[in-house]
Amino acid sequence: MSERKDGDNQSKNTPEQEETIAAIATPAGSGGLGKVRISGSRALKIADSVFTSPSGKSLSEVASHTIHYGFIRDKEENKIDEVLALVLKSPRSFTSEDTVEFDCHGGMMPLNGVLEAVLQAGARMAEPGEFSRRAFLNGRIDLSQAEAIIDLINSQTEKSRELAMQQLQGNLSSRIKDLRDDMLELLSQLEATCDFPEDEIPGFAGDELDERIENMLSPLKKLIASSREGRIYREGLKTVIAGKPNVGKSSLLNTLLNEERAIVTEVPGTTRDVISEIVNLEGIPLRITDTAGIRTTDDQVEKIGVARSESSLRSADLVLFMLDVSQGLTEEDREIFAKIQEKPLIILVNKTDLPADLDREKIEKNFPGAPVLFISVEERRGLKELKETIVELIFSDRVVGDHDYTVTRLRHRRALEKARESLEHMQQACKRGMPEDMLSIDLRDALHELGKITGETVTEDMVEKIFSDFCVGK
Amino acid sequence: MSERKDGDNQSKNTPEQEETIAAIATPAGSGGLGKVRISGSRALKIADSVFTSPSGKSLSEVASHTIHYGFIRDKEENKIDEVLALVLKSPRSFTSEDTVEFDCHGGMMPLNGVLEAVLQAGARMAEPGEFSRRAFLNGRIDLSQAEAIIDLINSQTEKSRELAMQQLQGNLSSRIKDLRDDMLELLSQLEATCDFPEDEIPGFAGDELDERIENMLSPLKKLIASSREGRIYREGLKTVIAGKPNVGKSSLLNTLLNEERAIVTEVPGTTRDVISEIVNLEGIPLRITDTAGIRTTDDQVEKIGVARSESSLRSADLVLFMLDVSQGLTEEDREIFAKIQEKPLIILVNKTDLPADLDREKIEKNFPGAPVLFISVEERRGLKELKETIVELIFSDRVVGDHDYTVTRLRHRRALEKARESLEHMQQACKRGMPEDMLSIDLRDALHELGKITGETVTEDMVEKIFSDFCVGK
Repeated sequence: MSERKDGDNQSKNTPEQEETIAAIATPAGSGGLGKVRISGSRALKIADSVFTSPSGKSLSEVASHTIHYGFIRDKEENKIDEVLALVLKSPRSFTSEDTVEFDCHGGMMPLNGVLEAVLQAGARMAEPGEFSRRAFLNGRIDLSQAEAIIDLINSQTEKSRELAMQQLQGNLSSRIKDLRDDMLELLSQLEATCDFPEDEIPGFAGDELDERIENMLSPLKKLIASSREGRIYREGLKTVIAGKPNVGKSSLLNTLLNEERAIVTEVPGTTRDVISEIVNLEGIPLRITDTAGIRTTDDQVEKIGVARSESSLRSADLVLFMLDVSQGLTEEDREIFAKIQEKPLIILVNKTDLPADLDREKIEKNFPGAPVLFISVEERRGLKELKETIVELIFSDRVVGDHDYTVTRLRHRRALEKARESLEHMQQACKRGMPEDMLSIDLRDALHELGKITGETVTEDMVEKIFSDFCVGK
Repeated sequence: MSERKDGDNQSKNTPEQEETIAAIATPAGSGGLGKVRISGSRALKIADSVFTSPSGKSLSEVASHTIHYGFIRDKEENKIDEVLALVLKSPRSFTSEDTVEFDCHGGMMPLNGVLEAVLQAGARMAEPGEFSRRAFLNGRIDLSQAEAIIDLINSQTEKSRELAMQQLQGNLSSRIKDLRDDMLELLSQLEATCDFPEDEIPGFAGDELDERIENMLSPLKKLIASSREGRIYREGLKTVIAGKPNVGKSSLLNTLLNEERAIVTEVPGTTRDVISEIVNLEGIPLRITDTAGIRTTDDQVEKIGVARSESSLRSADLVLFMLDVSQGLTEEDREIFAKIQEKPLIILVNKTDLPADLDREKIEKNFPGAPVLFISVEERRGLKELKETIVELIFSDRVVGDHDYTVTRLRHRRALEKARESLEHMQQACKRGMPEDMLSIDLRDALHELGKITGETVTEDMVEKIFSDFCVGK
């Protein structure tokens, strides 16, 4: 594992970075405007070879942070689109490199046409996340900030956006930096003690060392504690709606979404694909999956759906188990319950607008241990209680927003946990009176783990992996 | 009908235009970057109230066409996003009004958050197409150019993009202008003749008048002739795949798309929704619809699909009728043929990889008049011939690209046809020796119709209707 030193990522340009890259930076699809972004040492030259302004001005000559009207032409001099060219010169750009952005008309043909012209003029198609990766490699942002960009883009509720913005502004980075500074200071003291074993430099008095380790452990533990909630804000709470056919699963999903995505009819077995949608539940993103039912079937299409349903059940954070109050309990209900009873569960007894053939006592006896709500999706009754029950069930062991900082990424949590383990190991070793040079090994490990979060101690492979999750154009 | 005079649209501001509007201008969805656009007299003031740059600079004070880094804050001073602010001052912007664009991170939460802040600061949410409408009302572009913007955004092939770019650059506008100038000159001569009936101003000698009308009719007719092809390039050729269940319709669509959009299985009746996809066939956009089959059914979900299929069949430009070579001809094939035989038709005999129970002679005898192709979607055989046959069938009466200008919009075609009718009526009247003041009525009608294309003679209602087809943010 080749460890980078602090600041090392800010100096060297790899051959890859010598290349000028380009990509469409706006979402795919049709809209008013779209953007093609070019970054690298030849960005201005390449832009000039496809761009002509009515005044004949060259983009290489203009001031940074200026906007210029003109046309993009292909090799045959055909006008491809009418654009605004934005010039952002090094180092005052996102990547710290020379950057030109063409604001085009927002359709796939004009955008692809402009990108194609730029590529033909000598730019290379950017890899996913390559602009952000260059921003990281050029020292413009650290790794946790780069990750925050993608979390900000993918955020589904205000709370998720807020957490990503905090991370992007360096709130996590500065916490990690403070912790690492403390560790580095302690490390240098420990190593000084080793180098001069004859007590020329004094060791640590009484409980001082133990206390200082504890002072580092405490903020680490707080950050780790925040991460369960953080994951839910970042990824959404995986929620599966389960129940026999025609019990009202699609209708519930549609009602929560407040729009009709799936065809809803009275024929059992209609929902053949697994549909996953995000519902914003008081700031918590619920990633709800409607299932095709999990009954045994000979229908081939339905079999695909059933397999998908079972797979989404296995990874669920929460299952909404629906019953039909007008039908009593059936064998199928029991079969389904058997498959989901280990999961955090809310039982929804639907169709209370119809005559009842099922009461609370019977349900609680058959399906013990889960909250039971009587609802009518048709008449929109009980939905408020459902939302309250979900919030209660998920955050019962934790008050939402109680942390001064919330860790959202599993990658960060892992590194924090490993750092905690090393510090705890060090604490034990300290109590057993182990020599300073043994203690400093643990401390180095902890330092190394924390450096992974901000990117000081990551390998090429890790950087590769992290940025490959980004979209092209970012 | 209140007729506008030339240039009239360039002077007045309606109360609506006094308002400053804002919208997300990039496509919905996640991407690297997105844009919130603000336009109107208060754009700079509103932008300043949500934007802060690290240098404390106010956007009202900076030069036009400059870019500024900073943050957007909501009322509670929370940072919503890190942005670049683009300042484009009146009249040097798309709308000719003061414009500020915030380039944000390209996710729905940051974009909606920034838009929300801008609306709270006093901007009004823009109506669909309102930016373009202001560009039109402020005389920055004419109506056919505004329409070209939306065609450019929606274009699906290079040829469609090229036609839209030509129109955006004013190629149609200048042709219409030339025609109208000729008409206006003739009109003033005719009216002078009426005003001075005593031959103080000479009338027209011999065939001169007829010749001048013919000189206007000829380019009009050329433009009209180009419009059938133009519509196909703009809207796509509506192509429906018909055939009994399990004959390979979905597989054909998927093969043409080169990706799996619909679930393909061996169960008849799987395709329950009507799926429409664009395939680029040598520059011609094929808008292909796969149908749920058009057989009689009691299945409720399928009934919805069948009704949709029949409706898409009625509006089809081309039907691909699929047979299964291994099954012979069935009653169901005959029923389907009866419904589609009036349409331009290609018969595709699929599954030539299986043993044949059907030959060309039998097909041509039962289903006369259509080209018959033997194909195997499974083995990808015959697809090249299919593409060639489509091009041949559609453009047999016309060489593609033979026009010096191609009219793409039905609205333009209608106006051109009415102008032609008026001129032809005038020609007849001229031959019958009608007086000049009668002739000038026809000429005024033709002028009026052509003015509709560029927007000089449109009503408020028409403008409203045209721009309502635009997306929000354009």
